[in-house]
Amino acid sequence: MRNPYTLSDPELETLLLDDAPWGDATSWGLDISDAGGRMQFRARHAQVVCGSEEAARMGQLRGLQHDGPLVGSGTPVEAGTLLLSLTGRAADLHRVWKPAQTLMEYAGGMATATAELVAAARRGHPQIAVACTRKHLPGSKSLSVKAILCGGAAPHRLGISDTLLVFAEHRAFLGDLPAGQAVARLKQAWPERQVVVEVADEDEAVLWMEAGADVIQLEKCPPETVARVVARAATQAGKHGSNGPLIAVAGGVNAGNAEAYARTGARILVSSAPYQGAPRDVAVSLEPWPA
Amino acid sequence: MRNPYTLSDPELETLLLDDAPWGDATSWGLDISDAGGRMQFRARHAQVVCGSEEAARMGQLRGLQHDGPLVGSGTPVEAGTLLLSLTGRAADLHRVWKPAQTLMEYAGGMATATAELVAAARRGHPQIAVACTRKHLPGSKSLSVKAILCGGAAPHRLGISDTLLVFAEHRAFLGDLPAGQAVARLKQAWPERQVVVEVADEDEAVLWMEAGADVIQLEKCPPETVARVVARAATQAGKHGSNGPLIAVAGGVNAGNAEAYARTGARILVSSAPYQGAPRDVAVSLEPWPA
Amino acid sequence: MRNPYTLSDPELETLLLDDAPWGDATSWGLDISDAGGRMQFRARHAQVVCGSEEAARMGQLRGLQHDGPLVGSGTPVEAGTLLLSLTGRAADLHRVWKPAQTLMEYAGGMATATAELVAAARRGHPQIAVACTRKHLPGSKSLSVKAILCGGAAPHRLGISDTLLVFAEHRAFLGDLPAGQAVARLKQAWPERQVVVEVADEDEAVLWMEAGADVIQLEKCPPETVARVVARAATQAGKHGSNGPLIAVAGGVNAGNAEAYARTGARILVSSAPYQGAPRDVAVSLEPWPA
Amino acid sequence: MRNPYTLSDPELETLLLDDAPWGDATSWGLDISDAGGRMQFRARHAQVVCGSEEAARMGQLRGLQHDGPLVGSGTPVEAGTLLLSLTGRAADLHRVWKPAQTLMEYAGGMATATAELVAAARRGHPQIAVACTRKHLPGSKSLSVKAILCGGAAPHRLGISDTLLVFAEHRAFLGDLPAGQAVARLKQAWPERQVVVEVADEDEAVLWMEAGADVIQLEKCPPETVARVVARAATQAGKHGSNGPLIAVAGGVNAGNAEAYARTGARILVSSAPYQGAPRDVAVSLEPWPA
Amino acid sequence: MRNPYTLSDPELETLLLDDAPWGDATSWGLDISDAGGRMQFRARHAQVVCGSEEAARMGQLRGLQHDGPLVGSGTPVEAGTLLLSLTGRAADLHRVWKPAQTLMEYAGGMATATAELVAAARRGHPQIAVACTRKHLPGSKSLSVKAILCGGAAPHRLGISDTLLVFAEHRAFLGDLPAGQAVARLKQAWPERQVVVEVADEDEAVLWMEAGADVIQLEKCPPETVARVVARAATQAGKHGSNGPLIAVAGGVNAGNAEAYARTGARILVSSAPYQGAPRDVAVSLEPWPA
Amino acid sequence: MRNPYTLSDPELETLLLDDAPWGDATSWGLDISDAGGRMQFRARHAQVVCGSEEAARMGQLRGLQHDGPLVGSGTPVEAGTLLLSLTGRAADLHRVWKPAQTLMEYAGGMATATAELVAAARRGHPQIAVACTRKHLPGSKSLSVKAILCGGAAPHRLGISDTLLVFAEHRAFLGDLPAGQAVARLKQAWPERQVVVEVADEDEAVLWMEAGADVIQLEKCPPETVARVVARAATQAGKHGSNGPLIAVAGGVNAGNAEAYARTGARILVSSAPYQGAPRDVAVSLEPWPA
Repeated sequence: MRNPYTLSDPELETLLLDDAPWGDATSWGLDISDAGGRMQFRARHAQVVCGSEEAARMGQLRGLQHDGPLVGSGTPVEAGTLLLSLTGRAADLHRVWKPAQTLMEYAGGMATATAELVAAARRGHPQIAVACTRKHLPGSKSLSVKAILCGGAAPHRLGISDTLLVFAEHRAFLGDLPAGQAVARLKQAWPERQVVVEVADEDEAVLWMEAGADVIQLEKCPPETVARVVARAATQAGKHGSNGPLIAVAGGVNAGNAEAYARTGARILVSSAPYQGAPRDVAVSLEPWPA
Repeated sequence: MRNPYTLSDPELETLLLDDAPWGDATSWGLDISDAGGRMQFRARHAQVVCGSEEAARMGQLRGLQHDGPLVGSGTPVEAGTLLLSLTGRAADLHRVWKPAQTLMEYAGGMATATAELVAAARRGHPQIAVACTRKHLPGSKSLSVKAILCGGAAPHRLGISDTLLVFAEHRAFLGDLPAGQAVARLKQAWPERQVVVEVADEDEAVLWMEAGADVIQLEKCPPETVARVVARAATQAGKHGSNGPLIAVAGGVNAGNAEAYARTGARILVSSAPYQGAPRDVAVSLEPWPA
Repeated sequence: MRNPYTLSDPELETLLLDDAPWGDATSWGLDISDAGGRMQFRARHAQVVCGSEEAARMGQLRGLQHDGPLVGSGTPVEAGTLLLSLTGRAADLHRVWKPAQTLMEYAGGMATATAELVAAARRGHPQIAVACTRKHLPGSKSLSVKAILCGGAAPHRLGISDTLLVFAEHRAFLGDLPAGQAVARLKQAWPERQVVVEVADEDEAVLWMEAGADVIQLEKCPPETVARVVARAATQAGKHGSNGPLIAVAGGVNAGNAEAYARTGARILVSSAPYQGAPRDVAVSLEPWPA
Repeated sequence: MRNPYTLSDPELETLLLDDAPWGDATSWGLDISDAGGRMQFRARHAQVVCGSEEAARMGQLRGLQHDGPLVGSGTPVEAGTLLLSLTGRAADLHRVWKPAQTLMEYAGGMATATAELVAAARRGHPQIAVACTRKHLPGSKSLSVKAILCGGAAPHRLGISDTLLVFAEHRAFLGDLPAGQAVARLKQAWPERQVVVEVADEDEAVLWMEAGADVIQLEKCPPETVARVVARAATQAGKHGSNGPLIAVAGGVNAGNAEAYARTGARILVSSAPYQGAPRDVAVSLEPWPA
Repeated sequence: MRNPYTLSDPELETLLLDDAPWGDATSWGLDISDAGGRMQFRARHAQVVCGSEEAARMGQLRGLQHDGPLVGSGTPVEAGTLLLSLTGRAADLHRVWKPAQTLMEYAGGMATATAELVAAARRGHPQIAVACTRKHLPGSKSLSVKAILCGGAAPHRLGISDTLLVFAEHRAFLGDLPAGQAVARLKQAWPERQVVVEVADEDEAVLWMEAGADVIQLEKCPPETVARVVARAATQAGKHGSNGPLIAVAGGVNAGNAEAYARTGARILVSSAPYQGAPRDVAVSLEPWPA
Repeated sequence: MRNPYTLSDPELETLLLDDAPWGDATSWGLDISDAGGRMQFRARHAQVVCGSEEAARMGQLRGLQHDGPLVGSGTPVEAGTLLLSLTGRAADLHRVWKPAQTLMEYAGGMATATAELVAAARRGHPQIAVACTRKHLPGSKSLSVKAILCGGAAPHRLGISDTLLVFAEHRAFLGDLPAGQAVARLKQAWPERQVVVEVADEDEAVLWMEAGADVIQLEKCPPETVARVVARAATQAGKHGSNGPLIAVAGGVNAGNAEAYARTGARILVSSAPYQGAPRDVAVSLEPWPA
């Protein structure tokens, strides 16, 4: 439906050069480089489109013309929908083909998987939010963030510099510092940021709620535990200037269990599952076309 | 077992900066940045290790010490195996943690899935080779190529500049040029390269065999078709200076059907499936450790 | 006191190459390139040190040895303090000299100005926090963020992708959407982020408090207005699950008025002033030194 | 008045990505990304414009249209002057807003401060030239050089590879080599370059004049010393093939003392002061605008 | 005749910035930056054009207009032919002049030398192929590969990752592994690649032929040796599924001996000579031209 | 003799990755990657060494050990001299081999050709200086500048931003501005730079001498013309504060005519010829070597 942003030219150039640093050897060898052609991208299966703006821009960076409408990122489409049409020299069409197709297939796969996870969660609770981790494939951050936005989720964290998330691996260094003082330190140092604390069970959850954490992130807990923690959180209302902390569920959340987790009353489901969404096929046709 | 290559420093810097461009905000806020710590990476499940050299180098780029043995890429390990141990400042350990872990999990997942596919194929024919396509996630080429090498496969193509692969989308531009002349053009232009032709059925296969193609790549054909084409190929022996072309199978090849395809007598299975191998968990412990 | 992070090698290489892409022409012309020397960096005036790790690393990237102690970023020092000592070839010392000195002077200037602003604010209220804007000199983000951290402040935003800040320039596009629905949209889309709204006067402040904003940022308001808004915020306690929103003051905040603003009860002062802190002189001596 | 050059696309992409690597989270959360808007940049105070071409190009790189006239870099304008107008999607306008505004404010500040310093110096001597050092903020070289050109100054050096400047820190390595031989070495090695020697007092100045230096740069000397050295330089006319060396004044030169220094007869004032010129405010309006 | 590919914008930006990072100082000093002008590129001598697309794109990246026809890469032209015409600001024309001219001269020199070598070889045998090594000037790979393609040759290898070439320096590590097993290992690991073996004399050639190598590359052998090896290769027909291996000649091949080598019956001549082809002069005129 | 500078890591990584982005396929296929080896570089012919520091650093970037002495850039050596020795894994040795060898051969070729040109010129006049143009192969600037420095020449210009060179193509835009005023403009704008004017004949030379140019660069003039211009220049002594301008000779200067040009009394010979110096062979041996 909406395109949050388009990857930058340097990123797209890298992808294009990865695949065709010195042109298409086959077109060159067959002596068809200069023939005019048209390349069309169609959804082979229903999907949430993602990456079409990047595909169009890749074409432009290699001298192709964008011909006809463009179905924007975030749009859910039926199988067979024409997404993008490009015209130009055969050699240039071949240079853009696979990088554009692969990008759209992976991004569409992640966006579609996100949308499915969001839908499952919303069956459990209509206002629940889904946030995706930073555990995407190394090197694909800008594409992955775009895809999960297009699928209806938000990034949980963009990295470790922009948000606070207190892991047990941080706490191990605190010695006997009381939890309340740890939260106070964080609030003093980062006044405008939420203090999120990852915990493994109900006791830890209660400890950090009472210490003033804004978000309690339950790692790998069953729905029953989550429900109990949600109930405990409600009792915190009025303390620390809040109705009680937000409860987030993390660790193994996927489309199969999202509804159950959403029924617990947790506000946020944190998941890495959409990054493994199978690529959604985008069929590409490439044929002669008078210039 | 063997490490084909280690990703370059600029690539690793990009991954490190993606996650922690301005340090670990949580360590800073908790005032634990300078505490000494140790971080250990262990295989949570059995897997073919991949990316351990990169993880170690990431540590070095952030001032960490490599402490103890390193299990190299390509090594199959049991669950629980210690793969890598790093020591240094807590703030630096946190900057390396997730980029290193995520890289190892994805790479290990791809390497392990590759090894499983190769094993399945070899059950069908002990000499069969597995080649992986260039349809890896955009931006991960160097990591993906390393992973499939570590898993026992080879890259099918590194891009469209380094090999010849005649698609129907090329042939559409040839007009009525006879197939034999098309092959001859390619051999003249690229004397040291194999002419690979992708075909959709037996008739096309025979046409291009007779035209002199070195490799016939069958796209989305059932094993019976493949077997028939292999038999036809044997009859080409002696023509075009060969025992007949190699037969490669592509399109939907995976661990479930690899054995059946291998029994057809085809020499090469081409697959994208290993790139969707689920990441293999690598457990990370991080604890105080005197400097 | 504490070093949040060190700039990456690619960033430091860029700075080194900016100044000496083809070596030091003067050393070459005088034929002194290979002479051994020592270069020492000393604070000419009292300052909060910043950038010494980068200076040391620049030396290492040009083959110099780090000789003696290093005074780390974040340390307040007296005039005359020895900060860093490097030895090596004269040609290499000259290649490192100005890039390292200029980096330390600018970073030290920003860190010191930050510390002065923080101190002024804390005279008004001991718990007040100072956050610095993203209005640093173009191209210096990683250095500027480090400097203000070292001076005791936090970055207000690292960019527009990592935080929510509703400007009037956003609201102009909302038509007649009620403020409460706008806040609800943001909370739904970004469940773990604070909703910060910039307002120009008390009426707007009250409107958005009541709409549920987490932080009200007052732009260019006199202290009296701020104080009134703080009082109004206290009356919001209990609504929207909070004690009432945090009040932040922005626009023209500097060391001259920080104390007055801090007395208003606002929790956060947002300022760009530290980025214009005059560079703090770092004296460099460079003399022959046997290898 | 004149634009010496426009920063390159890669530099501008870096600045854009620094601020909005994954789009404007606020526009996305408010669901206003696709609304049409117009953004106008106006000088809030009188200034010498600098960076408007870069701002316009940033807009183009994010899909905005340039609408209306562009006031070019180097133009002195009154408060309120419309400098640039851009139209496009709200999400894209927000991605360009601050990077473009900040760049123009800093560059305009440096250009204006340069122009003021040049004007002050010219009150002392109408032909005097102002040259700015390489002590600009790390990472801002191309913008800083453009700004001082637009303000009427020249870069003193672009780095240490392109010019000769003999510091005392070079001379310390010369042992007892006579000054004349040192100059001769430089002239032999770099036949087309001026030999500039930085000196701290009159005696050193005379020594290096007599040795044949083309430019004597007096570091941190009072105007009276400069005047005496200028007089001594005049007596060198005829030796070393010149009317005597040029005298340059460096170290602490600023708008407050430039006139006095210019009256000494020195030909060049070398200053770092313009780089600390306070950013000149550029007001930005952003409002809905039909596409 | 045909353009295999055009260098990417990042590559062209690097070349432009190498020569004019901060504009044309002379145009600026003369105050002619904004004057309108036209710049035309003409072949001073007959040549195979190469790099004209890059020159045109460089102009576009600096705001110039392409005015009139463009003679594409790969076209043989007579002396005096107009290749490219650009119009725009004088300052921008000067920024493009030398980078574009130098690129065209070097690329044209390499393309022309390649064409001459190919022509010489074809006088010896009309079907012989010429392949150029990877021994081009460091940093010029994409330009060099383009140039030799335009001149009628192919790249021998694009690097060591994309092809197999067994040097003696590899074989030294094989211990007493029989040659046949070495070839089998390679075929198993890289099923779709040709096994090329470099040998120094007839005995080695025969050894590796019999071991099943696809291509025998004779290094620095006289034509008589080559002819004998070709004859031996013919006797291999029928073994290893081939008519016998291809024979390639490498080491010192140039336009002076190519015909003689081609007469030996070898199928491929491998040469580095075209990279030293003297740059072909391209005359540039630059004159005032109304905007 | 002396190393002016070593290319930066990012530049060297680019060269290494150009050749072996995904390791050495042959070593991998032969399963010899982990074998220990030693690689030695020896001058095959007498030469001025250039690039040995870069070769050593390339080895270090790929994990090799530097073993034994390093013959530094600028050193003239006899045939057979051992320049560099590296030890490590066979796979890593192969990744470094050709990039290091090719860099040393090209750089050594340029340095040696420079030294020959300088020697020829000095036979004509012992104090003459040689300056090399910016017409080096595109993309090789840092290596080319290093090579000519090592050979005893200087760069004529590092680009068009760092020096003034008035071409006829500039003057065409000056209308009827008198030459003296053009020179004055330049001196005003760039007070510390030499005004160099390229002229085509004696009349132009005299015109610009009288206008005050510091250097007259004669383009493609025979020695007799140069000698006459030198004589005319001597008559300018005393005007414009000089003994008369320096005379530089450009256009077609090479080792064959340098002596004749040097005898004319010109002070500077400007040449592009060294960049076409044939690469000087560096023999590489690579053999098993226990770790």
